[in-house]
Amino acid sequence: MKKVGVIMGSDSDLPVVEKAIDKLKEYGVPYEVHVYSAHRTPVQAGEFARTAQENGFGAIIAAAGKAAHLAGALAANTTLPVIGIPVKSSTLDGLDALLSTVQMPTGIPVATVAIDGAANAALLAIQILAVSDMALAEKIRQARAAESQKVLEKNAGVEAKFN
Amino acid sequence: MKKVGVIMGSDSDLPVVEKAIDKLKEYGVPYEVHVYSAHRTPVQAGEFARTAQENGFGAIIAAAGKAAHLAGALAANTTLPVIGIPVKSSTLDGLDALLSTVQMPTGIPVATVAIDGAANAALLAIQILAVSDMALAEKIRQARAAESQKVLEKNAGVEAKFN
Amino acid sequence: MKKVGVIMGSDSDLPVVEKAIDKLKEYGVPYEVHVYSAHRTPVQAGEFARTAQENGFGAIIAAAGKAAHLAGALAANTTLPVIGIPVKSSTLDGLDALLSTVQMPTGIPVATVAIDGAANAALLAIQILAVSDMALAEKIRQARAAESQKVLEKNAGVEAKFN
Amino acid sequence: MKKVGVIMGSDSDLPVVEKAIDKLKEYGVPYEVHVYSAHRTPVQAGEFARTAQENGFGAIIAAAGKAAHLAGALAANTTLPVIGIPVKSSTLDGLDALLSTVQMPTGIPVATVAIDGAANAALLAIQILAVSDMALAEKIRQARAAESQKVLEKNAGVEAKFN
Amino acid sequence: MKKVGVIMGSDSDLPVVEKAIDKLKEYGVPYEVHVYSAHRTPVQAGEFARTAQENGFGAIIAAAGKAAHLAGALAANTTLPVIGIPVKSSTLDGLDALLSTVQMPTGIPVATVAIDGAANAALLAIQILAVSDMALAEKIRQARAAESQKVLEKNAGVEAKFN
Amino acid sequence: MKKVGVIMGSDSDLPVVEKAIDKLKEYGVPYEVHVYSAHRTPVQAGEFARTAQENGFGAIIAAAGKAAHLAGALAANTTLPVIGIPVKSSTLDGLDALLSTVQMPTGIPVATVAIDGAANAALLAIQILAVSDMALAEKIRQARAAESQKVLEKNAGVEAKFN
Amino acid sequence: MKKVGVIMGSDSDLPVVEKAIDKLKEYGVPYEVHVYSAHRTPVQAGEFARTAQENGFGAIIAAAGKAAHLAGALAANTTLPVIGIPVKSSTLDGLDALLSTVQMPTGIPVATVAIDGAANAALLAIQILAVSDMALAEKIRQARAAESQKVLEKNAGVEAKFN
Amino acid sequence: MKKVGVIMGSDSDLPVVEKAIDKLKEYGVPYEVHVYSAHRTPVQAGEFARTAQENGFGAIIAAAGKAAHLAGALAANTTLPVIGIPVKSSTLDGLDALLSTVQMPTGIPVATVAIDGAANAALLAIQILAVSDMALAEKIRQARAAESQKVLEKNAGVEAKFN
Repeated sequence: MKKVGVIMGSDSDLPVVEKAIDKLKEYGVPYEVHVYSAHRTPVQAGEFARTAQENGFGAIIAAAGKAAHLAGALAANTTLPVIGIPVKSSTLDGLDALLSTVQMPTGIPVATVAIDGAANAALLAIQILAVSDMALAEKIRQARAAESQKVLEKNAGVEAKFN
Repeated sequence: MKKVGVIMGSDSDLPVVEKAIDKLKEYGVPYEVHVYSAHRTPVQAGEFARTAQENGFGAIIAAAGKAAHLAGALAANTTLPVIGIPVKSSTLDGLDALLSTVQMPTGIPVATVAIDGAANAALLAIQILAVSDMALAEKIRQARAAESQKVLEKNAGVEAKFN
Repeated sequence: MKKVGVIMGSDSDLPVVEKAIDKLKEYGVPYEVHVYSAHRTPVQAGEFARTAQENGFGAIIAAAGKAAHLAGALAANTTLPVIGIPVKSSTLDGLDALLSTVQMPTGIPVATVAIDGAANAALLAIQILAVSDMALAEKIRQARAAESQKVLEKNAGVEAKFN
Repeated sequence: MKKVGVIMGSDSDLPVVEKAIDKLKEYGVPYEVHVYSAHRTPVQAGEFARTAQENGFGAIIAAAGKAAHLAGALAANTTLPVIGIPVKSSTLDGLDALLSTVQMPTGIPVATVAIDGAANAALLAIQILAVSDMALAEKIRQARAAESQKVLEKNAGVEAKFN
Repeated sequence: MKKVGVIMGSDSDLPVVEKAIDKLKEYGVPYEVHVYSAHRTPVQAGEFARTAQENGFGAIIAAAGKAAHLAGALAANTTLPVIGIPVKSSTLDGLDALLSTVQMPTGIPVATVAIDGAANAALLAIQILAVSDMALAEKIRQARAAESQKVLEKNAGVEAKFN
Repeated sequence: MKKVGVIMGSDSDLPVVEKAIDKLKEYGVPYEVHVYSAHRTPVQAGEFARTAQENGFGAIIAAAGKAAHLAGALAANTTLPVIGIPVKSSTLDGLDALLSTVQMPTGIPVATVAIDGAANAALLAIQILAVSDMALAEKIRQARAAESQKVLEKNAGVEAKFN
Repeated sequence: MKKVGVIMGSDSDLPVVEKAIDKLKEYGVPYEVHVYSAHRTPVQAGEFARTAQENGFGAIIAAAGKAAHLAGALAANTTLPVIGIPVKSSTLDGLDALLSTVQMPTGIPVATVAIDGAANAALLAIQILAVSDMALAEKIRQARAAESQKVLEKNAGVEAKFN
Repeated sequence: MKKVGVIMGSDSDLPVVEKAIDKLKEYGVPYEVHVYSAHRTPVQAGEFARTAQENGFGAIIAAAGKAAHLAGALAANTTLPVIGIPVKSSTLDGLDALLSTVQMPTGIPVATVAIDGAANAALLAIQILAVSDMALAEKIRQARAAESQKVLEKNAGVEAKFN
C-alpha cells in the first residue's frame, strides 16, 4: 500500500498532528512523519515533496499555523494530493492558518480540512488511497458503521436519561 | 479511468462550476455533472453519493454557497473523497460557505478548496485519480511545466516593459 | 400538548443543550431528547424529522457546532419549524456554527438563536406552541413578568450599593 | 387563519421585504405590512407588538439593517414568535445586522434567518402557523415537492448540456 | 453639576461597569447607577431615558453585551448624549456587542467606546459635562498630565532596566 | 453658541463628511471644516486640537479611513469630546477604520459612530452642545418628532399599498 | 545605489504593483521588476532571492493575493528585508492575503504594508535604503514636506468652500 | 553600528516586547528601550522620532495594542523605517491592533509583523541594518543555518519516535 507523508512545520504542532498518526495507525496505513518548515528548511521540504511519489507515497498531510505556507509549498512540488491542516495558534483563533492554507491560487490546490482537524486529514488521505483499494474502502465503511453505532448508543444513553 | 462527479447545489452555481468542467475536459478525465440540492433534493443527493463508487466514480466535487451543506451531505454517504467548492454569494463574501464546507466534524472530511476555486477542485480530483495512474500524473506535470513556462513568458514581458 | 424534539449532533453538546431541556421542563412542555448526527447517522436524523409531525411534535430544536448542518438537515425533512442552536467549539468562537446554521438557502429556513443560546431555543419553541395555546402564552407572560421583577430587584440592590 | 405581521425598520428595506410579502401571498396567508422603527417610532413599534396577539397575529417578521434592534424590540413586547431578517447595508456586508439580530440575551429569543433572507422569513412564519393547521402544512409539502421537481428539471437541463 | 446615569443591561455587567463608577467618583462627578434591560424592563429603561434631562442628568452611559440594544434604546428616548460600552461575553470576543452598539441608524447616534471600555465611557461623559464647566475641564487636564507623568516614570523604570 | 470642528484626514473623505456639515447647517450650529492629516500634517492637527477649546469649539468631529488615527490624535490634545467617523475605504469594508477609531486605550476616549455615519456624528455633537442649551435640545426633540412623523407617513404609504 | 526588487506573483497584480514602480521612479531609485510565482515557478523565485544581495539589491517588494506565500517564500531565501503587499482579490476583501503575508513564523519576518498598499511598499524600501544614504533621506523629507503642503492646500480649498 | 529604538505604548506590553530585546542582544545590535504613548505622551513620542536619525538610530520598533497608533505616530515623524508589532489585548484577539498598525495611508508606511511578533520585529530591524553591513548579514545567515539545524534535529527526534 502507498504511504502517507505526515509533515508538520514545527514540532510544536505535534499535539495536533498526533491525532492524524493515530488514525493512520488504526487503519494500518503505512506512514512517515517529518518536521519540515516551509521557511526554515525549504530545501528539505521541497526535496521531500519532489521525491514523494517515487518514494512510494500516495498522499501528503501538512500541518502548520499562522501564515501556514507549508501545505502550499509541498503542493507546488508534487502532483500527489496534499492535505492541509490549519493549526490554531495563540492569536486569531486559527483563521489566519485556515485562509493561508485554503485560498491557494489556481493551479496548485491544497485539500484543506478543519482547523486542528488532524483526524479528518488522515481519514481524507485514507479515502484517497481507498479510491483504488476496495479493501481499504470497506474498512472505512465498517469504521463509519461503528461510528454510527456509537452515536446510536450515546443516543440510547441520552434517551434513557432524559425521555 | 474513473469518473469525477461534479455536483452543484443550484444551477445558479454553474458560472463558477464551469471552470471545473473545463479543466476536467482539458485533461480528458471523464465526468458527470448534476444539480442536486442537500436541502431540496436530499434523497437524490444521498442516492448519488451512496452509489457513486459502484457507478465508476473516483472523486466527487460539490459546489454550494451560503450554509453550504452539500459537500458534507455527500461525504456522509460515500467513502470516496469529496471536494468542496465554497461559492461566494451576495453577502459575507464567501466566508459563510467556506466555514460551512471546511469545518466538518471528525469522521467525515471534506477536501475544501478556495472560495470559487472550481479549477483547483478539478485539479485536486485529477491529482487524486493520478495517485494510481502514472500517465495522468505525467499529464499534470506537463501542464504545470507549461504553466511555469507561461509565468516565465509573462515575466519576460514585464521585464521587457519595466527593466 | 405537542412535544418539542431536542436533537444534538453529538453528546458533547449536552452541557449546552441541557439549558433547553431545563427550560422545557420548567414550562411543563413535553419533549424528547435524541443524539442524531447529520453526518454519522443521517438516516436516523432524516427519519426523525420526516415522522416528527405525525409523532406529535410541534417544533424541533437542533444543536450542533463547527460546520453545523444538523438543523438544516432536519429542516429539509419536515414542515415543522426547526430551531438551530449554533454551538461554540474550540476554534473560531462559534462563528462557523452560526453561519452554517443561519445562512440557509431559500426554501428551507432554520430559526437560528444566539451561539450557545439553548434556553432561548426552548423559549422560542414554547412561543411557537403558544401561538395556538393561550394558557401557555399566559405562562410565558408570567415568566417574563417574574424575569422583569428579578431585574428590578437586582436594580434595587445595585441602587442601594452605589447611589 | 392568524395573520403574519411584516414590519420593516425603514421603507428602504422594502426591496428586501417584498420577497416575504410575495411568499405570504403565494400561500394565501393573511398579512399586514408596516414601517415601524425601533428608534424613531418606538412607541408605535411597542404598541404593535403588545397588541399583536389580540389583533389576530400568529407571528411577526421584522427586517432591519446595521444595529438591527427592531426584531428584539418587538420580541420584548409580545409572546408571539418574532422572526428577524438581518438586512445588508452599505458596510460590513450584513454581519452587523446578523449579530445584532441573532445574539439576543436569554429570555427574549429572535428566530433569525439568513442575511436578506426574506422569503425564508415568510416560510418560517408559515411553518409556525402550520403547526396547528394541517392544510397549510400540506401546502408547504406540495410547494417543496414542486421545488424539488424544479431542481430535478434544472438537473435534467444541466445533464443534457454537459453529460 | 449635572449627573451621569450609569445603566447596565444585567448585573452580570457590573465587573466591567465598576471602572466607570470608580472614574466618576475620582472626578467627583455625581452619578446614579441602575440595572435596566432593553428587553426585560423596556418600560423602566424608556422611562429613565425620557425623564433623564429633567431629572438633572447630563449624559448617560449604557453597558450591554451580545445583541447590545440598551444604549440605542435609551438614545431613542432622550436628547442627552448616550455613551455605549460594548461588553464582551462568552462568544465572539465582543464583536457582536460592538457592532450592535455602534452601527446605529441615522437619527439616533450612540457614542461608542472600546469593548469593555468603561473607564473611557466615564471619561467621555466627564468631557461632555466639561464642555460648559471649565473647572472640570481643568481637572481632566491635570489628570492627563498626571497620567503622562506616570508613563514617563514607567519609561524611566524601563530605561533604567534595559538601557 | 460653541462651534463644532469638522476635521477630515483627506479631502477624499469629503463626500462622507458633507452629511455632517449639512446636518450642522440644518440646526444652525456654527462649525469650521478643515483637512488635517494625523500623519501628513500632525503639527497642524495637534495645534487645532490644543487650541480648540479657547477658540470657541465645543466638540470636534474627525473622519478618517483605514488605520484611522485622526480622531485619537486629536483627542490626545484636547479635553473636548472628539467624535470619530470611521470611513469605509476600498478594502475591508470599513472594519479597519472602525477598530482603529473605537478601540482607544484607557485615558483618551473617542466617541465613535457608525462606519460612514457622518450625519449621526453631527447629531451627537449637537446633542453634546444641547446638554447646556435647552433651546437646542428642544430643536432636536422637534426634529425627532418630524422624523417620527416621516416614518409614520411612509408607514401609511406602505400600508396603503400592501394592506 | 542598491536596487529594489519588485516581484509579483502573477501579472494580474500589475495594476496594483505599478504604483510601487512609479514611486521608485519618482525617487530615482534603481529597480528590477519580475513575475515569479511561489507555487508555479518556485525555483526562479528562490533563485532570485538567494542571489539578490550579491546582485546588488537592498530590499525586495513582493505582491501577491489570496494565500499570499510569495513574500514569505522570498524572505526564507535572503537576509534582505522583504516587504509584502497583500493584494485584494475577488473574495474576502484582502483579509486572506493580509493574514498570509503578515502572520509569519518566528525567524522569517515579512515587512507587511496595507492591502493594495504598493506606493507605501516602495516608500518603505526607499526608507530602508535611506538608512545609510543621507541624500535619499533628505529626498523623503522633502517629498513629505511637499505632501504636507498639498494637504494644507486642500485644507485651504475646503476652508474657502465651507467656512 | 546604528541603534534600534524599541518603543512600547505601555509598560504592560513589556512581556511581548522583551522577545525583541532578547533578539537584539543575541545579535549584539545596540538598542534603546522606551515607554512612549501616542496618546498620553505624544510630545515625547514625536520628539523621539524626530531626532532618532541624528541620535544614531537606524530603525524603530513600536509595539502597541488595541487602536495601535504608536507605530504610525512615530513613522509620521521620521524617515527611518518603523516596524510595528500589533499586541493582542483582552478583546478581538489582536485583529484591532493588526489593522490599526498595517492599514496606514499612502505616504507613511509601517513595516508590520505578526501579532505579538516581537522577535521577528527585531530580526527585521537587524536585516535592515544588515543591508549595509555584510558582517551582520553573515550573522543572520549563520543564525538561520543554526535554526534550520534545530528543525532538522527535531525532525530526527520525531522520525525516531514515529517512523
